[in-house]
Amino acid sequence: MKHRKFLLAETDIPTHWYNIVADMPNKPLPPLHPGTKEPIGPEALMPLFPMELIKQEVTGEKWVEIPDEVRDLYTLWRPSPLYRAYEFEKLLGTDCKIYYKYEGVSPSGSHKPNTAVPQAYYNKQEGVKRITTETGAGQWGSALSFACNHFGIECEVYMVKISYEQKPYRKLLMNTWGAKVFASPTNLTNAGRQILAQDPNSPGSLGIAISEAVERAAMNDDTKYALGSVLNHVLMHQTIVGQEALKQMEMAGDMPDIVVAPFGGGSNFAGLTFPFLRLNLEEGRNIRAIAAEPASCPKLTRGVFRYDFGDTVGMTPLLPMFTLGHKFVPSPIHAGGLRYHGAGVIVSQLLHDKLIEAQAVMQKECFQAGVDFAKAEGILPAPEATHALATVVREVQKAREEGRPKTILFNLCGHGYFDMSAYQQYFEGKIVDHELTAADIEALIAEIDTPEILEA
Amino acid sequence: MKHRKFLLAETDIPTHWYNIVADMPNKPLPPLHPGTKEPIGPEALMPLFPMELIKQEVTGEKWVEIPDEVRDLYTLWRPSPLYRAYEFEKLLGTDCKIYYKYEGVSPSGSHKPNTAVPQAYYNKQEGVKRITTETGAGQWGSALSFACNHFGIECEVYMVKISYEQKPYRKLLMNTWGAKVFASPTNLTNAGRQILAQDPNSPGSLGIAISEAVERAAMNDDTKYALGSVLNHVLMHQTIVGQEALKQMEMAGDMPDIVVAPFGGGSNFAGLTFPFLRLNLEEGRNIRAIAAEPASCPKLTRGVFRYDFGDTVGMTPLLPMFTLGHKFVPSPIHAGGLRYHGAGVIVSQLLHDKLIEAQAVMQKECFQAGVDFAKAEGILPAPEATHALATVVREVQKAREEGRPKTILFNLCGHGYFDMSAYQQYFEGKIVDHELTAADIEALIAEIDTPEILEA
Repeated sequence: MKHRKFLLAETDIPTHWYNIVADMPNKPLPPLHPGTKEPIGPEALMPLFPMELIKQEVTGEKWVEIPDEVRDLYTLWRPSPLYRAYEFEKLLGTDCKIYYKYEGVSPSGSHKPNTAVPQAYYNKQEGVKRITTETGAGQWGSALSFACNHFGIECEVYMVKISYEQKPYRKLLMNTWGAKVFASPTNLTNAGRQILAQDPNSPGSLGIAISEAVERAAMNDDTKYALGSVLNHVLMHQTIVGQEALKQMEMAGDMPDIVVAPFGGGSNFAGLTFPFLRLNLEEGRNIRAIAAEPASCPKLTRGVFRYDFGDTVGMTPLLPMFTLGHKFVPSPIHAGGLRYHGAGVIVSQLLHDKLIEAQAVMQKECFQAGVDFAKAEGILPAPEATHALATVVREVQKAREEGRPKTILFNLCGHGYFDMSAYQQYFEGKIVDHELTAADIEALIAEIDTPEILEA
Repeated sequence: MKHRKFLLAETDIPTHWYNIVADMPNKPLPPLHPGTKEPIGPEALMPLFPMELIKQEVTGEKWVEIPDEVRDLYTLWRPSPLYRAYEFEKLLGTDCKIYYKYEGVSPSGSHKPNTAVPQAYYNKQEGVKRITTETGAGQWGSALSFACNHFGIECEVYMVKISYEQKPYRKLLMNTWGAKVFASPTNLTNAGRQILAQDPNSPGSLGIAISEAVERAAMNDDTKYALGSVLNHVLMHQTIVGQEALKQMEMAGDMPDIVVAPFGGGSNFAGLTFPFLRLNLEEGRNIRAIAAEPASCPKLTRGVFRYDFGDTVGMTPLLPMFTLGHKFVPSPIHAGGLRYHGAGVIVSQLLHDKLIEAQAVMQKECFQAGVDFAKAEGILPAPEATHALATVVREVQKAREEGRPKTILFNLCGHGYFDMSAYQQYFEGKIVDHELTAADIEALIAEIDTPEILEA
């Protein structure tokens, strides 16, 4: 009988989040004020976030304790299982060993509740009555809806209008957990009204939705804002994924040569890989960490490292990030969770310092890898997760060419049961590959007018 | 930290299926030939099933060994987790302890692969090239598609036309696993053509789809048929659910007073409850086993115990069952898996002998219980599973009135992520309760012309 699953006990849920900042040779640069362009301190974030999350955003402590109530709620679905993908290995005909950490067992079916739960908890502790957020594909919005419902906080989700219309079931899931979901742009905010005045039929974008959610939080004392990726504290919350995976790889008597995760804003990638990168930084190991991004939104592989806004309108602080420019609107690929113009600050610094790698993959190869995986292992992956899969397939091919089998671990960050329309389009041959041309990239970068990063 | 989950190791997957027939005080009566109405032996099933499954259908052995290859594939998702539903208990404000076994972790998201895998395996062993089956909601069809794909067998699914149109994503899941899916009635069979000649726009029914699938198998030497419930061997395969649950309840240091499962043809119910009924039969314990059926299809609570056909057209052997008549077409409720006119032979005998109980529940109370459960525990249940939930809610209420808290275990047999349109209708107030009147029942029973069961 094959030993496919490596399961931990509830008492194995990590007691602390891992803050890679403590181990980074070059620390992240400070954010800048959107108006003055001067470095800002944590107090600038107070209208948007509860104090405890702001502290976590800027802390240099290596380990941050997870509150008991958060660990308790984590037990609803954690520790998540780690699998050896014997059937997928067989399908690929490879000598590589492939493992995957499966985050689809969570209430909303992805890794997002790992940070939604502590974010809702700290807001509750500080008396916040309402949390606003944006969502694209709906993974983050549904995770936050679940967490807010548990802690008795109102949740307002600004969902990109085109997704709102295309993914009614994600919206329904949020409603099930009591959230109010609005098709963004709305008439509820200045940002939304401004967009609608220009284009009453605007399909919306993640950047617009962020502007709306941020505005609502900034204008109301009892309301805060929550973000599902990019920020340091969000990445840190996800490190429970990699910490568990590390223990599970030890149970399997194995250790990855390569760890792979999909890349949108960075939390998925950070969650799995940072606890393995810790071994590189502490012990000089040489585990390769690969961020898998869509070729249609290649900020890591083809963007520039400079200050940029987190939203389209330019309301947020300026962050030092790999970016394609905050005005870039990625083409409407099916991995909505990866359609973001920039990368989180920590990940950007690590990439700049060549401590991690990135690869850009095409939509069709992603769906092909996803279908093959479903045939072999029985789980249909979320479109976001298929980016990691396509990268695994490439690494397997490379290992074959080199005649050196590798041990590969990837993050199967969610199931695709709310993304069946995307698979339908794939089967019907309607999926189109979007890859930016050199001229596209040049034009995008030429348009960026935010401050450059001055090398030390 | 709450101990919510009780997890077993892969080596804890049962080595044998439990055959309750060995322990039944009154054994099931033999099936009758559809034409002669005389008792038939196992050889009559040979055109439809591989020999090993026929042997299992009629065996009196108490324990039937599970082949290594089947146990190996079970490890893709088994053992499934058992949970203490602390959050749901809190929501209900009860002193009862509520546990649930969660079968939604399987590839197709329900308990159905537990029998699809061994059925495909034995067919493969005996050189079968193609398996046909019917499916309503699609849970069974997708489970069999998955299993056939693994063992390299073709799979043909006759899907009730109205479901085929309403549930395109279930069909897509079957396609992902390589199955051919037809909207039944089709032009491929005599049965289908006969129906279409009468009504070219027939929406189809489970009975018609069974007739089509059976005909295809009977007419082709390299093709067999598979059924997802009702038959003895199917019920037996599901007993791994209850065997695991029994171990897990022991891990929890607890034992249920009441076990509850949804009821369609009997495999869901048998899977969870038979290993607990074994304790009643062997040791004289008094665990209550409750089958939760829809009030719109109340064969257990309001049907008659007599011989009846398994399909609408009357092609199958006559089985001694609780039935509403094989011509009964249940109203189109959302728990498609429970829309079957009759109950499996073993369960029918047990109910006749008062060794189990049954309750009929209404659609709205089921969806209400499902939404409450999702809010509390984070998992949105399949409509079928909500029938068990509604029954649990009733038993909790009863325990409150009696002032005697109970320990209740139920089968959360699947997730509802492919059934979101049903929840949408519930939220929009469009769910209608269907309950048969006394006159309806009288008329249905008066129409039954199959042989009565002569009491010994």
